[in-house]
Formats: sequence, C-alpha cells, structure tokens
Amino acid sequence: MVLKLYGTPMSTCTSRVLTCLHEKSLDFELVPVDLFAGEQKQPPFLAKNPFGQIPALEDDDLTLFESRAITSYVAEKFKGTGYDLIRHENLKEAASVKVWTEVESHRYNPAIAPIVYQYRVAPLLGNLPDQTIIDDNVEKLGKVLDIYEAKLTSTKYLAGDFYSLADLHHLPYTYYLMKTPAASVVNERPHVKAWWEDISSRPAFKKVAEGMNFVKK
Amino acid sequence: MVLKLYGTPMSTCTSRVLTCLHEKSLDFELVPVDLFAGEQKQPPFLAKNPFGQIPALEDDDLTLFESRAITSYVAEKFKGTGYDLIRHENLKEAASVKVWTEVESHRYNPAIAPIVYQYRVAPLLGNLPDQTIIDDNVEKLGKVLDIYEAKLTSTKYLAGDFYSLADLHHLPYTYYLMKTPAASVVNERPHVKAWWEDISSRPAFKKVAEGMNFVKK
Repeated sequence: MVLKLYGTPMSTCTSRVLTCLHEKSLDFELVPVDLFAGEQKQPPFLAKNPFGQIPALEDDDLTLFESRAITSYVAEKFKGTGYDLIRHENLKEAASVKVWTEVESHRYNPAIAPIVYQYRVAPLLGNLPDQTIIDDNVEKLGKVLDIYEAKLTSTKYLAGDFYSLADLHHLPYTYYLMKTPAASVVNERPHVKAWWEDISSRPAFKKVAEGMNFVKK
Repeated sequence: MVLKLYGTPMSTCTSRVLTCLHEKSLDFELVPVDLFAGEQKQPPFLAKNPFGQIPALEDDDLTLFESRAITSYVAEKFKGTGYDLIRHENLKEAASVKVWTEVESHRYNPAIAPIVYQYRVAPLLGNLPDQTIIDDNVEKLGKVLDIYEAKLTSTKYLAGDFYSLADLHHLPYTYYLMKTPAASVVNERPHVKAWWEDISSRPAFKKVAEGMNFVKK
C-alpha cells in the first residue's frame, strides 16, 4: 500500500516530512487536513495522533506522528532508496547526524518557532506580532547560529561534508524566517547563508516550498 | 578504549545517558565536569561540545554531545549488549520508540524543565521559584499527561508493552519533579503513576538516582 501522509504543506512539520519523502523518491498520497476548520482536533485525526497535530503517516497498518520520528523512520526503512539521509553505512557519520538532528530539536527549533509564529501566524489570528518575543528569540537564535557559523567553516553541512536529515529538518522554519525582517540573522553569517542557499535549492525542497503559502484560504 | 562520559550525575542530561549505559551493562569512565565552576563553558569542554552543556561522550576518536543523540548512538552501536532499548529487530516497534522519544523531546520536556528549574535550580542561584511559571507549566504538563494516561491504559509502556528509550528519557526530570509539590500531576493519574513507579524502580536507574543530589557542594 502506498504511504499516506496526513497534513498540509503550509505546516512546517508536514513540509519536513514531504521534503524527506521527495529526497527518498517515494510514492505517497498527501491527504489534506484543514487546520482552519480544526480538523486535526477532531476524532478521526485524533485517532492517528492523540496530540491533535499534523502530520501523521500511515504505512499499511502502522500509524506514526511527530515529524522527526516520521523522517527518521522513512530514512531508515527506505535506506536503499533515493538519497541516504542518515549515512547508514558509516557509524561515525550516522552518530554525527543524530547529534545535529538533536541540536535542531533542542536549540534551533525553540528559538526560530516563536519568531515565525509572531511574524506569520499571529497576523492570521488577528494579532500584531509581539516585538519583544521576536527580539528575545532573534538574540537566542543568533547565539545558536554563531556556533553553526563556526561549524560550517570546517564542514560543508552540519553533520559533516554531506547533506543529511540534520540539515533537512531546518528547512521549513528557515524558509518562513527568510521572508521576515529576521532573515538578517542568517544573512549576516556568511557560512550559514551559503549553507542555507545550498540546502534550500535542492530539488526535493524546491518542490515542497511551492506549496508553502502561509495564508488562510 | 573505554567509553568516557563527561558530566555530573546531578544533571538530568548526564543522568539520561548514565541510565542508558547501565541498561546496556557497559563499562565506562565518568569524568566529572564542575558546573558550579563553569567548567562546561571553558575551552577544554567547548572543544567537546561548542554549546557548552554537559554531557559529552568520547568513544575512541569520536566525540558526541546532546544526551538523546548519545543514548540513541549507544543503544544502536551496542544493540547486542544488555537490554534492547530500541527494539532493533522489529521495525514497527522501533518506529513507535522513535515516535514516543520525540513526544518526550517536544511535548514533555518543554513543560517539565521549567518546573524543575523553578523549584530546584532557582533557589541554588539565590532566587525564589516563580509560581506563575510553575503554574503555567504544570497545566501544560497535565495536558500532555492526560494523553499519556490514555495511552498507558492500552500499553504498559509508552511505545508498547516493552520498556524502551522512550520511557528512559523521561526518568531524570521526572525524578526531580516527584520531589516537588508538582508531583501531584503524576500521582493524580493512576496509569501514569504506575508507569512512573515501574520505570523508576529499574536497577539501572536506581543506581543513577543515588547520585542525583541537586546541591551545590
């Protein structure tokens, strides 16, 4: 049975999985979930993810949620197909992918998510962006990116001289960030800027980005 | 060469890795890092983890940081030794471990960490616990635990009827939480309480908990 992904490309977490599926050149069906109608909080979707958040992936009788668990599952199950995102043949490189995947989860994501929320989600809900939240988190993100800048002077990508899941996980939020005034936090750091331009120009992500329109239809 | 873990058992992230090493029955050397002297922010440690946080693991010429990347690496590299924490022989069970490991990272940890910080770290720094932060996060944690409660009525552990890395990652923060008035958020939910009593009584964790004394020496 073909993989079924429940979500919408507008969502960063759905786009993270979509990018992974494209990198792996897998066939899948995208089943839309209407966030504005609150479909993700209704019983049919809650049976797939009790936390009521997209995306969810169905692979036969297996249902998974949490975008980073899905990408890791897909990269592992289909390790022989498409681009190898987890360096499964090299224990050391695979370990480095794990490290920088965790850095994205615990250092990058907590800083970037509130910035994107304030600039792009708050207005959809009829609120003005909160500049204090933005400023605090741009400062926090800047400190994380100082360490990325240093790392990216010695390796082309975060986990080493190879693109991996660790880079891929950064794509959706950074894509939205780059459309805000806070894009300077990336542009001011030459190695981070070059890394961003490289990873965001991969065909798998370009295909996904076409659908990333943060608008209420 | 024997594994070298840099950290201190007082730290939740170090204890997460220590518990994993004990579950895997591995020999290792614990190299103390003095947090109160700020040793983790000095060049020798920054060369191991540029983010300046413990723990770091050395396995021959490989240096890793981020506690959950280390446990995942250890569980994978030594999958044939000690207790199998990642269900490596069953793709579906392994996928479920990934899902609930991500739940801990993105839902449980962000709610529990500020509570433990306020009750146990703030006083060490000469500050009173901020009750508003505590209350907000106890409410947030309660909502996460409502979903755990429902899940734990159908399976004995988070990822299924087997103890795994997904449960293990919860141990250190919950251990500290249970020594605060916010312990009620666990105790009020019978299946969560039973799960906590079960996982915290495993010999591997009991050994680690002996060293978890949140005091300035």
